[in-house]
Amino acid sequence: MSQFPALKNDTIIKAAFGLPTDYVPVWIMRQAGRYLPEFRKVREQHDFFKICRTPELACEITLQPIRRFSMDAAIIFSDILVIPQAMGMNIEMRPKEGPTFTDPLITPDDIDKKLNVKADAKTELKYVYDAITLTRIKLDGKVPLIGFSGAPWTLFAYMIEGSTSKTQSKAKKWLYKYEEESLRLLGHLADMIVVYLIEQIRAGAQLVQIFESHLGYLTPELFKKFSLPFLKRIVQQVRSGLRSENIDLVPIIFYGKDGAHFAIEHLAKGENYFDVISIDWTMDARFARQLVGDDVTLQGNLDPCALYSDAAKLDALVKEMIDKFGKEKHIANLGHGIYPDMDPDLVKVFVDAVHKHSAKS
Amino acid sequence: MSQFPALKNDTIIKAAFGLPTDYVPVWIMRQAGRYLPEFRKVREQHDFFKICRTPELACEITLQPIRRFSMDAAIIFSDILVIPQAMGMNIEMRPKEGPTFTDPLITPDDIDKKLNVKADAKTELKYVYDAITLTRIKLDGKVPLIGFSGAPWTLFAYMIEGSTSKTQSKAKKWLYKYEEESLRLLGHLADMIVVYLIEQIRAGAQLVQIFESHLGYLTPELFKKFSLPFLKRIVQQVRSGLRSENIDLVPIIFYGKDGAHFAIEHLAKGENYFDVISIDWTMDARFARQLVGDDVTLQGNLDPCALYSDAAKLDALVKEMIDKFGKEKHIANLGHGIYPDMDPDLVKVFVDAVHKHSAKS
Repeated sequence: MSQFPALKNDTIIKAAFGLPTDYVPVWIMRQAGRYLPEFRKVREQHDFFKICRTPELACEITLQPIRRFSMDAAIIFSDILVIPQAMGMNIEMRPKEGPTFTDPLITPDDIDKKLNVKADAKTELKYVYDAITLTRIKLDGKVPLIGFSGAPWTLFAYMIEGSTSKTQSKAKKWLYKYEEESLRLLGHLADMIVVYLIEQIRAGAQLVQIFESHLGYLTPELFKKFSLPFLKRIVQQVRSGLRSENIDLVPIIFYGKDGAHFAIEHLAKGENYFDVISIDWTMDARFARQLVGDDVTLQGNLDPCALYSDAAKLDALVKEMIDKFGKEKHIANLGHGIYPDMDPDLVKVFVDAVHKHSAKS
Repeated sequence: MSQFPALKNDTIIKAAFGLPTDYVPVWIMRQAGRYLPEFRKVREQHDFFKICRTPELACEITLQPIRRFSMDAAIIFSDILVIPQAMGMNIEMRPKEGPTFTDPLITPDDIDKKLNVKADAKTELKYVYDAITLTRIKLDGKVPLIGFSGAPWTLFAYMIEGSTSKTQSKAKKWLYKYEEESLRLLGHLADMIVVYLIEQIRAGAQLVQIFESHLGYLTPELFKKFSLPFLKRIVQQVRSGLRSENIDLVPIIFYGKDGAHFAIEHLAKGENYFDVISIDWTMDARFARQLVGDDVTLQGNLDPCALYSDAAKLDALVKEMIDKFGKEKHIANLGHGIYPDMDPDLVKVFVDAVHKHSAKS
């Protein structure tokens, strides 16, 4: 990867691999997002997915929070739904509903009718890799760049529901009613995600995060059948793929919402473990540590709504968080993405408070 | 309570108090609901809240599932949002958004401007008590009748959000920004809920359930400050209120969604414990039992989507659930309310399978 500028701040990579650091590194899910006026300005001029598909625009937006704040990582501006799009599904960003598939999957017949399940992630998602390479160069080694993907079950659910859902009941119906076909589609998604993540890393991503945002809609049993095997396979195949091409391994982060209490112990141990487990605000850090053991790094988990506090209270809440996680094997983050109505000044308080309260003096 | 017919099936009451039973009793959250054609027929003719306010209609709907299936309890048809309505808030049932307050609370000033916080639950919610008394009589002792209320935090969130919300971030903002005022409003809600539950029991409710449907939006710390103290206070004051009026105690059930792993251990022990803790589908029954200890009864927790399976598979899933909970101190239920598109025939399979697999032979 010699084409890239030398990295000046590798704190998050060290922390992700469990190595000692001078302070706890921090970034924010959706840090390049609507809460920033400069983001909203770009969005006024361009469609959401147009930005994802235009490396210069995606790069610009990725860099916006890095110019303002002292985060220890950038995360490439993109969306988890680019994979279903690459399989041929059409998406619209609707003002109230959010991203919506215009022709969702209804029955298993649609897998072959509506999808190109063998779509080549290398060519179809080249715009993401180009954005990553450009951003990595423009970052000039200031901080590492994170790539990401949705997990198979989370993408599967979106492709069937068509848009956000309170119950995910259409997608869950498939799991109970069409078990074999569900496993087939999840397998196709996993195959594509493996290629997608390897290509992101080849293009310059220095960590990758896998979002199982719909984790808490599953039962422990559904998780073990329809999510866990694919997550493990992705970790295993991404690592072996990188090794076979002599590309250095990068940390792989798992994020799951609302099901950590049944899921993370299975993701942090054994051969195909994640390097980092990111938890939501409902998880007590000590309970999470008890579940995952001492080997992996934990990421999280301040309640995003803590950013509605005043600066002094937010600072105290950050200190509380650091005290709970400890100063090693921890990457500070929110428990979920930041909301559009939040104040950038408080984001600065959050980031700086993490550094202040975790500094080893 | 001599005005009521003798109870022929007290299985659920025994189970709720931790006494041995011949089989595991079962009911379903939202069992009187849209999945029943006879319910939809009534709804075609009457507004949702009109039905709540008309004892004859609420009674008819409550009895519908009891005529079809062998559930061990009826639950009065009503809605958790009747309390904010009794405080003066206006609500509309909107086809896509569900129940929506036309003028939600924006800032703490609105507590006194928009609400009658001292509204008398005895008079304002008389229609609920009348519906309960009528239904208790019409049930003719076939099964016990359950009353219910939303919990203070869950109602508080709805009153600020105005309708369903993916993040509850407006309501959570109050918790961080207006702590004292939030506690004040939660206190008013708790006061009203105490009266409401006592009056339901006086009118004939033989168990009551408190819904903390928005539990998982809280952190463990927010729960301890803004939910737990009010839940404990309600249990304590309902019990002492009943005692002081020489009304027999009835089992009090707690239902929380998505936060059981941090909440239920605090609700099942100590002086003001709940008799029954109802868990969602993400909670492993053995883990829940470990958290609550041996004294309380657990309720739940089949994934509602299991009702999309065929009959044989559903039967097997019910057996698995019974095996996990054991046959004592368990009330079978779904992990959340049943969905409108579910097949009544599968509801019958569910109910009968619980009885079959839990029968002591």
